[in-house]
Amino acid sequence: MKRIRVVQWGLGAMGAGMAKLMAEKEGLQIVGAIAKRKEKVGKDLGEVLGLGKKLGVNVTDNPKSILKKGEVDVVVHAVASTTKESFEELKLIMEAGINVVTIAEEMAMPEANEPELAKKIDELAKQHRVAIVGTGINPGFILDAQIVMLSAVCHRVDRIEAARINDLSPYGPTVMKSQGVGTTPEQFEKGVKSGEIQGHFGFPESIKMVAEAIGLKYDRIEQIRKPIVSKVARETPHVKVQPGMVAGCEHIGIAYCGDKQVIKLVHPQQIHPHLEGIETGDYINIFGVPEVHMSNKPEIPGGVATISLAVNVIPLIVNATPGLKRMVDLPIPSALMGPTAYERRK
Amino acid sequence: MKRIRVVQWGLGAMGAGMAKLMAEKEGLQIVGAIAKRKEKVGKDLGEVLGLGKKLGVNVTDNPKSILKKGEVDVVVHAVASTTKESFEELKLIMEAGINVVTIAEEMAMPEANEPELAKKIDELAKQHRVAIVGTGINPGFILDAQIVMLSAVCHRVDRIEAARINDLSPYGPTVMKSQGVGTTPEQFEKGVKSGEIQGHFGFPESIKMVAEAIGLKYDRIEQIRKPIVSKVARETPHVKVQPGMVAGCEHIGIAYCGDKQVIKLVHPQQIHPHLEGIETGDYINIFGVPEVHMSNKPEIPGGVATISLAVNVIPLIVNATPGLKRMVDLPIPSALMGPTAYERRK
Repeated sequence: MKRIRVVQWGLGAMGAGMAKLMAEKEGLQIVGAIAKRKEKVGKDLGEVLGLGKKLGVNVTDNPKSILKKGEVDVVVHAVASTTKESFEELKLIMEAGINVVTIAEEMAMPEANEPELAKKIDELAKQHRVAIVGTGINPGFILDAQIVMLSAVCHRVDRIEAARINDLSPYGPTVMKSQGVGTTPEQFEKGVKSGEIQGHFGFPESIKMVAEAIGLKYDRIEQIRKPIVSKVARETPHVKVQPGMVAGCEHIGIAYCGDKQVIKLVHPQQIHPHLEGIETGDYINIFGVPEVHMSNKPEIPGGVATISLAVNVIPLIVNATPGLKRMVDLPIPSALMGPTAYERRK
Repeated sequence: MKRIRVVQWGLGAMGAGMAKLMAEKEGLQIVGAIAKRKEKVGKDLGEVLGLGKKLGVNVTDNPKSILKKGEVDVVVHAVASTTKESFEELKLIMEAGINVVTIAEEMAMPEANEPELAKKIDELAKQHRVAIVGTGINPGFILDAQIVMLSAVCHRVDRIEAARINDLSPYGPTVMKSQGVGTTPEQFEKGVKSGEIQGHFGFPESIKMVAEAIGLKYDRIEQIRKPIVSKVARETPHVKVQPGMVAGCEHIGIAYCGDKQVIKLVHPQQIHPHLEGIETGDYINIFGVPEVHMSNKPEIPGGVATISLAVNVIPLIVNATPGLKRMVDLPIPSALMGPTAYERRK
């Protein structure tokens, strides 16, 4: 089996996880790694990842030195969340004739927030005969691609309601801040207004992906961010929440067609939801003919799943036709456990 | 939007359902229908389907008269269960340069039971530059393609257990017989031995599809058919089951690698399972990193879903590269509710 040559761009928590997973996969060969932090640059990737062995690949901060035509099949990009922040890097990769998998949330469906950049990316990809896709657990999978998949059993889809109820406890201070964990309800409202408390990143992307794939019409999206006010004391290493304070953010995205709710996505993110008897999980409800009521408990863990998805789509994007792809444009993705998982994609 | 020109081959319960659904879809144009039964042949399809309006298409029993190159984009084939029974008809369609969707169960993964015919079909499809796929709820979706889809969130898959617990009550006498409903336990054992009681049709296909897509190895499949002996009286218009008699067949398919169970699929099919407190549903459990535990209650209704899937994959197969495809080789399928559902597939 000819191995797929991969460069990992970005070695934060996500990027490092991807590199570790790729190092385990027999069908993938890591041929380069790009990072900014000085303490990583120049070192062997295996050392940086704490694998206890060398991988024979030095981490570089000079992308151009390793992104050479014909030497790399795909770059896995884990650097930023928006299309705008990622654009120049994605362009550089595509111009080198290399395919791209990125976990930039907006890139799951860049047409949602950056239609002009999305068009440019599609043109660049076609010009250089490469394929590019944004993936991740959400957006990219559980509240979009998986909904689309289940809709295939339907004669008719009238409306969709889906929810992802997860536990933020494992996350660090940045996530606590962006979700308003540990604020008072008043601080929460102010934070939402100022944009400091963002809630979930990806509803417009997920909604557009689902609506286009199924062919549902909507004319506007409303987003609501509500504080989850705790009745009990909750605590993580990074934050303390007293009763009456905010344990997280319930973010709701609704696509309307006129007065009708077409797609409603609900994503309450909080620390220790079980302390108030809340079961975490992923829930998809399709109303139509027939109805579909899927649940997945506990929720698919976000970090692990995003890392998996970024790695597992590699054979799909390498074998795709040129252009900007969304998860629903690619064949059904799978875990990569042996040669046939790579070979079947040709 | 240019409509996709479809011929429906087979107008039994499934085929008629597909034709009805296609007649509702704005992106599809029914240009022909093929049936054997004399009472249908020569009549307008709308009349045969009981739509209360004409569709301008007469049902024919002469396939060659309507399967003409350049006049039909795809045939939806609902005639038989095995690859062998279907082969000559599929060949005829492909030789006319027309794509195929079939609900023949074995065709979901014809390599499982008919590797030589599968090879021939792939060669024929490539020679005539058409694509062909087998689909349906099971095999084709819930115990294979959907399992593969969920595996994409996994770093590693160790083993898979999935079950479909459904209610046979709506079905007619043929299904009751093939599942042994209404027999005594002794008659059931005899029926299994003679092959009269078949249980589910599709485990080798589903197992091979999942294993190849994920790259899991197995060296043998064991199939077990157990009687579901009823503790209570159960009854449908077609069959009466007294306590102590058989209400259905619990069919289990297990793929082993050495002594290790790699994939276990369980499909207990019976009438009125709720009479013994059994909840119907679809269940997928992936053991690995992370674990995934999906459930879908009640079960996705088989007939409706098979009809939907056959129709909903039409844009995917029309736009696919030539060859024999399985559901996991095509883009994530979706319901077809408006123009973008067709356009996005190009």
